[in-house]
Amino acid sequence: MIIFTEQDLKQHVRLNQEAIPIIEEAFTKLANNEVEMPPIMRVDVHDQNGEVDVKTAYVKGKDMFAIKVSSGFFNNFKLGLPSGNGLMMLISTQTGIPQALLLDNGYLTEVRTAVAGAIAAKYLSREDSETVGVLGAGSQARFQVRALKLVRDVKKVLVYSRSTDRAKKYAAEMKAETGIEVEVIDCAEQVVRSSDLVITTTPSKEPIIKAEWLHPGLHITAMGSDAEHKQELETEILVRADMLVCDTIKQCARLGELHHALDSGVLTNDSTIVELGQLTSKELTGRENEEQITVCDLTGTGVQDTAIALFAYNEMLKRNLGQQVENKTVSLKN
Amino acid sequence: MIIFTEQDLKQHVRLNQEAIPIIEEAFTKLANNEVEMPPIMRVDVHDQNGEVDVKTAYVKGKDMFAIKVSSGFFNNFKLGLPSGNGLMMLISTQTGIPQALLLDNGYLTEVRTAVAGAIAAKYLSREDSETVGVLGAGSQARFQVRALKLVRDVKKVLVYSRSTDRAKKYAAEMKAETGIEVEVIDCAEQVVRSSDLVITTTPSKEPIIKAEWLHPGLHITAMGSDAEHKQELETEILVRADMLVCDTIKQCARLGELHHALDSGVLTNDSTIVELGQLTSKELTGRENEEQITVCDLTGTGVQDTAIALFAYNEMLKRNLGQQVENKTVSLKN
Repeated sequence: MIIFTEQDLKQHVRLNQEAIPIIEEAFTKLANNEVEMPPIMRVDVHDQNGEVDVKTAYVKGKDMFAIKVSSGFFNNFKLGLPSGNGLMMLISTQTGIPQALLLDNGYLTEVRTAVAGAIAAKYLSREDSETVGVLGAGSQARFQVRALKLVRDVKKVLVYSRSTDRAKKYAAEMKAETGIEVEVIDCAEQVVRSSDLVITTTPSKEPIIKAEWLHPGLHITAMGSDAEHKQELETEILVRADMLVCDTIKQCARLGELHHALDSGVLTNDSTIVELGQLTSKELTGRENEEQITVCDLTGTGVQDTAIALFAYNEMLKRNLGQQVENKTVSLKN
Repeated sequence: MIIFTEQDLKQHVRLNQEAIPIIEEAFTKLANNEVEMPPIMRVDVHDQNGEVDVKTAYVKGKDMFAIKVSSGFFNNFKLGLPSGNGLMMLISTQTGIPQALLLDNGYLTEVRTAVAGAIAAKYLSREDSETVGVLGAGSQARFQVRALKLVRDVKKVLVYSRSTDRAKKYAAEMKAETGIEVEVIDCAEQVVRSSDLVITTTPSKEPIIKAEWLHPGLHITAMGSDAEHKQELETEILVRADMLVCDTIKQCARLGELHHALDSGVLTNDSTIVELGQLTSKELTGRENEEQITVCDLTGTGVQDTAIALFAYNEMLKRNLGQQVENKTVSLKN
């Protein structure tokens, strides 16, 4: 068993061009039925406003697959701790023996989630998208813009957050980091109406974007909802989209924006919905013209976790990083 | 993050009297609805005849809860490796932060599974049970007898295995270890007809015990089936039992002996079925007389894993064992 620390993982597994084909391959294999991915396991710790998710996926032909444990404890800020934590482990697909532990505290999840956003933008947003609206000002609001820069020539970011202070901090930091102009906007409507591409990154429990704000050519990636009670988009937006894409339809139907559209009956199981892997596999093309409105619903999949964990493992081994823990099987003397 | 090795865990977490109240408390809390336990997550790796299960349960009032990853890869013997592997981790119920990793390679699962068998025997078998029938000659066939000795005065073990060589090896080893007379029997029927208490520990896919072999006073614990396709008891046995007990009804209805009885319609959701926690909590009494036939269906629950992992953690800390891995949260420089 080899163990990698957060520090090493952050230093050497970067959100860059290399990560895109890694995650694209994951979605392609998912679309081609080369992946076994059980439903997410979830434990709620209501007393502490906490939740722990377990995600996994076995990708045929790979040496190992990941099991990821990720937690969100939303009272942690009172203790000065981040809400998100967790780790990934890699299990041998030959023997079932755990091989590696990636103590990333959620970093690799940030990366693979942002890369999925970039992939959605690559296939679905207008190529000349310049103005990007960001709803929310947390960690993914940062990662999504970093990833988007890999596929689109972002000239301006418009950020809206319920907390103006957080939005201002975001704007200052992201401008310093990227050199891009970042403007704080005090209403979500103006952000959506003024942007070519909008990314929603909030834990909202009710829609923050209205259908009446949609305009020709807009692409929206909604990555905030990953639980039954979360929702960022009015369901009518999913109906009016010329192309609606999910990371996986099954999971979005349970946990994503799609869930609410199905629940309210504005969409049905017969509605035309595309999976991201059908785009990455080139089975389907994405955006067809400058006028289409496109929406991508991301809930986060185990196959992304396996892909990023394998990528990280190889990057670590290349650099001779990691700490071996001796754990020889010993005979029982009970 | 502190890491405990298999060697330390095997040396200091013993299958003894102390373990029984630990696991009884777990079942009691489960019966009292003080546990959040999601369904088991399962990944099949068909190419390698392998499977990986994830189990977990949050017990209200406890500092930490376990997430257990356990694998069974049934071609491993070709590589000279055990089929079962895995580990447990403990997560803080205050912050969601992983606290400890127990690299037990399945040892703690062996212990908590055997203890559940002992608890079933304590409440359901005749107090004067002396002759114990064991079907299967693997690792649990050993652990179950070790645990049973904690609650019953076992005078004789009758063992049956499809492999006579394995049965002979079992008999020799268990006799040497326990001093109990262990006899190899070449048919399952004779084992059942001659025993006061029978434990089935096989991965059988079709019934190995027939209803016509039942006799007054018999108790059967069936712990082999933990998947849809496994079955050790004819469904008629569950109907004829005067008392049918499950570790959890929900899980047994999906993965245990109960599953087949419901599927075939010989039992229904209205049948009287007891949960083990109703016995440990004293809500119900177990065996009422010397003539009753009792059956306990065990599939293995996440709440047992949390209980044994917490117990092991405390035993390790008492002895200053474990290896700290430094993994300070570092700021992003991406």
